[in-house]
Amino acid sequence: MTPNAQALYLGIDGGGTKCNAILVNDEGQVLGRGTAGPANPYHGYERAIDSITLASDIALKDAGLEPSDKSTLIAGLGLAGLHLPSQVKKMEQWQSPFAKSFFTNDLHIACIAAHESNDGGVIISGTGSCGFAHVDGQSLTLGGHGIPCGDKGSGAWIGLSAVQAVLLASDHLGPATLLQGLLEEQLEAKGMLIVDKLSQARSSDFAELAALVFRAAEQQDEVALGIIQEGADYLSALGLRLLELSPPRISLLGGIADQMIPWLNAKLVERLSPAKRSAEFGAIQYARSQLTLEEVSK
Amino acid sequence: MTPNAQALYLGIDGGGTKCNAILVNDEGQVLGRGTAGPANPYHGYERAIDSITLASDIALKDAGLEPSDKSTLIAGLGLAGLHLPSQVKKMEQWQSPFAKSFFTNDLHIACIAAHESNDGGVIISGTGSCGFAHVDGQSLTLGGHGIPCGDKGSGAWIGLSAVQAVLLASDHLGPATLLQGLLEEQLEAKGMLIVDKLSQARSSDFAELAALVFRAAEQQDEVALGIIQEGADYLSALGLRLLELSPPRISLLGGIADQMIPWLNAKLVERLSPAKRSAEFGAIQYARSQLTLEEVSK
Repeated sequence: MTPNAQALYLGIDGGGTKCNAILVNDEGQVLGRGTAGPANPYHGYERAIDSITLASDIALKDAGLEPSDKSTLIAGLGLAGLHLPSQVKKMEQWQSPFAKSFFTNDLHIACIAAHESNDGGVIISGTGSCGFAHVDGQSLTLGGHGIPCGDKGSGAWIGLSAVQAVLLASDHLGPATLLQGLLEEQLEAKGMLIVDKLSQARSSDFAELAALVFRAAEQQDEVALGIIQEGADYLSALGLRLLELSPPRISLLGGIADQMIPWLNAKLVERLSPAKRSAEFGAIQYARSQLTLEEVSK
Repeated sequence: MTPNAQALYLGIDGGGTKCNAILVNDEGQVLGRGTAGPANPYHGYERAIDSITLASDIALKDAGLEPSDKSTLIAGLGLAGLHLPSQVKKMEQWQSPFAKSFFTNDLHIACIAAHESNDGGVIISGTGSCGFAHVDGQSLTLGGHGIPCGDKGSGAWIGLSAVQAVLLASDHLGPATLLQGLLEEQLEAKGMLIVDKLSQARSSDFAELAALVFRAAEQQDEVALGIIQEGADYLSALGLRLLELSPPRISLLGGIADQMIPWLNAKLVERLSPAKRSAEFGAIQYARSQLTLEEVSK
């Protein structure tokens, strides 16, 4: 890149299911977009690298540019899994094809984008669940431990809880539930064969089962109502803890966020604000702020 | 094997942590024993095959015989994971080195051995948990779904529950517990790094953490007491359901069985009888009964 060429920024929001890329110029104008597969290095480093590269190539093509132009890009990458120090280290050792790469976790970029500011809070309830707030230079991360260790109130946790409840009901060791019929139909399996079908299941597979729980809850199934309320209580407690830091704004994001709102603590709900932009814009903003820091420290 | 040579029987009890082999002659005299690693094909087919082969070779050597003598043995194999039809199919396709191989699940051979009879019941609380009863030609299997879908009251479930409780406590989203200090010390990690350390953890790794929960419970830690009681309540309910079939005897087996007894329902405890023999003898008895069936049907 010659000193006079206009800088191009790439923003990557890499999640457990897909990876979104956005290409913008120095004025913030969107030139291209791309989407590829999962980009959580914790669940597969090679696949994450491939998804990031592919999403970038698609965004470049969308902008009328070539894959080889990756070498001119200043990239901000917010990836799921990068709350783990081991994963940050792994990604920083990657010989990335970009001119510069700035890595952070997906929560951080989602928060920056939601508030168009470094300060704010986010509660995420999608495939997984977690919370993050950054206020006056201090940050707090809650949850994000994944199933089976955590992620209460997420799609994956709700789906896994449904499977547990159905297996107990099948053995007549737990209350009868509409979830049994719904799950057996969805998986085309009963009892032990459900376990067999789910032997290689990932978080995203369990999250797909969450819809059944919302369906059973609509029919006032006690087991389904109990699962959703327990998950929502966790998200409420997590949100109220973030509010203790007094973030100027707080948003609820993620694939099942809208479905969870009716179950959340009213004090939390009245504090929620919609996200201003999607997470990949936060990745751009993060890259720009890190670049400024580098230039200042020169 | 010439028709006049004495038949030798191999009994295999293959669990998630280790595989025990016993070699007996036609009179039931023990000639040799061997132990090797995990032999649950659901958690690793190749490893299970290797463990079975190695345990057999050790038992043969112990008896002063050669590995090549495997081809003369009539083997009964009771393996964890064989309650799943897919796993039974996989094992039956194995070109086993034995003259004959009869497969069943580990619960079945444990029950036969516990009562020296086809009729009886067993409750297992070891790495995993499950129940089995066979009475008057009818059998009932409960649980055995593995973590994270089931296996309440097992070592793995107790260990996983401890990890969940510690992560909630670390985020101040659950009650403080002595388990936090104990787990952090054991894993040499805190918060998110605990998740990182356990990313590849198997059931047996979680089961190793159960000892911490019993230690915290001795110190009246409410969280630990709650975990153990919830697990014990499940085992009690499971045992009482098996008793509905009126098995002549019922036994509680497995690595943490003795530790769980004080927490179980008194009506169940007064019905428990000690196991007469260890599971590998049940595998021998199973092989002999299947061989008799084969000869009868000729």
